[in-house]
Amino acid sequence: MTYILHDGRPCTESAASSRALHYGDGVFRTLLWYDGQAVDWPAQFDKLSADCSALALAAPDADTLAAELAQAVGVQPSAAVKIIVARRTSGRGYAPVGSASERWVQAYPLQHVDQSDYEQGIAAILSSVRLSTQPLLAGVKHLNRLDQVLGSRDWPQGVREALMCDAQGHVICGTRSNLFVVRDGALLTPRLDLGGVAGIMRAKIIDSARRMQLHIEQAELSADECLAADEAFVCNALIGIWPLRALGERAWPGPGALTRKLMRAVAHPLCRPARP
Amino acid sequence: MTYILHDGRPCTESAASSRALHYGDGVFRTLLWYDGQAVDWPAQFDKLSADCSALALAAPDADTLAAELAQAVGVQPSAAVKIIVARRTSGRGYAPVGSASERWVQAYPLQHVDQSDYEQGIAAILSSVRLSTQPLLAGVKHLNRLDQVLGSRDWPQGVREALMCDAQGHVICGTRSNLFVVRDGALLTPRLDLGGVAGIMRAKIIDSARRMQLHIEQAELSADECLAADEAFVCNALIGIWPLRALGERAWPGPGALTRKLMRAVAHPLCRPARP
Repeated sequence: MTYILHDGRPCTESAASSRALHYGDGVFRTLLWYDGQAVDWPAQFDKLSADCSALALAAPDADTLAAELAQAVGVQPSAAVKIIVARRTSGRGYAPVGSASERWVQAYPLQHVDQSDYEQGIAAILSSVRLSTQPLLAGVKHLNRLDQVLGSRDWPQGVREALMCDAQGHVICGTRSNLFVVRDGALLTPRLDLGGVAGIMRAKIIDSARRMQLHIEQAELSADECLAADEAFVCNALIGIWPLRALGERAWPGPGALTRKLMRAVAHPLCRPARP
Repeated sequence: MTYILHDGRPCTESAASSRALHYGDGVFRTLLWYDGQAVDWPAQFDKLSADCSALALAAPDADTLAAELAQAVGVQPSAAVKIIVARRTSGRGYAPVGSASERWVQAYPLQHVDQSDYEQGIAAILSSVRLSTQPLLAGVKHLNRLDQVLGSRDWPQGVREALMCDAQGHVICGTRSNLFVVRDGALLTPRLDLGGVAGIMRAKIIDSARRMQLHIEQAELSADECLAADEAFVCNALIGIWPLRALGERAWPGPGALTRKLMRAVAHPLCRPARP
């Protein structure tokens, strides 16, 4: 280990040498801890393992990691838990040496849940920041998140999410969520073969829709197609499903019937639709 | 600060909460320390400041940072120094809050310099990994380096650099260097308006070429145009200029006349061309 100064003071922190900090050479998960357990843990762990594979990283042991989640949460009844898995450093230089990984697990207090987000929906905007595309990392939740940082700047008051397009103008996802729209009774969600994160709530919704025998399609979606949708919602593991009540100038009267049906189907502990 | 576990052990390192580690929300510099000073320090500091501005980050104080470089290097006669400047954390979430920054400075022993790299040139390949493009970050040396990590994997024995194209097939740069080619006496280097890092050695070469009244152009360059070049070289602040003696199957007999002229012009302490 070399001599490191952090803000002028000698620093012996191993994280200061990590490839997560230097290159973002790793992946992460953010999940909901509720009622004494990690919600959708098997799917979360499978996705973590798949994302590790995409970077040729060794995944942590499932039981060890599950125990660490419980330890990090401690006595909190609910929490947002973040898991980072990064390649172990092997000295200076981009070239990855081996697949050995290190991991950080931390639990944050859950932010206040505003029930109106579920009952009336949230306001979103279309970001002017384009997502960069890297097919080798499409769908993977990796640590290179500058696109999302740029896309999260300067939201107007009250806006809770921004949808991001790629350079071709296809809507890919929100800064921290996946997107679904409803058109003529069919459920559409952006294809993620060039970029974006294939979240586990997205997979769960696709699965629910199939079991409900809905028409579900992974498609190229333009911003205009999103604005013209009958219903629209975003999702992630922490929030479940947030219906959109607005996307820029476009407003929807309230969560649509199909959105409410899926909100019930995914059985997320925080996500309770208004009664019809 | 939340409770963090690192590989199962409680972790109080501030870097584990940094936006550099979580998002790559910062920029960096790698520079050569030689003969008791930071080579090209004014240009390095100016570029660091410009890159900070691109992310709306406060740049460190120049004098403070210069003193920290000297402290990190200590008694070593030469070193590779890395400076990281990242946005200070403000809790969970992508949205950047403010421009306050933190910084890490570290000095690595200089790797063995092989004089034949300068006298005969190095072997490079064309990477099959495409660079992702984000116009808002083009030219900026930020901490999202997965493209470079992917492009540095699995090089054949003896290869020292890989050139990377964007999705349109334009050659942009090496994983850790900028590229120049010579064609019919003119000097060409890739335009960096969509991606890549505008390094300070690149700027110095462009400046030298102008003073030498060479024809110099920032151009769209295909891989075929690079392979057909009369001369080719890569550059960065640590190495100065490395002539290419091979690019994949294409071989050049030895460093060309213009390359050798520019190697002398940039007056880099490690970069000594063979005598003509």
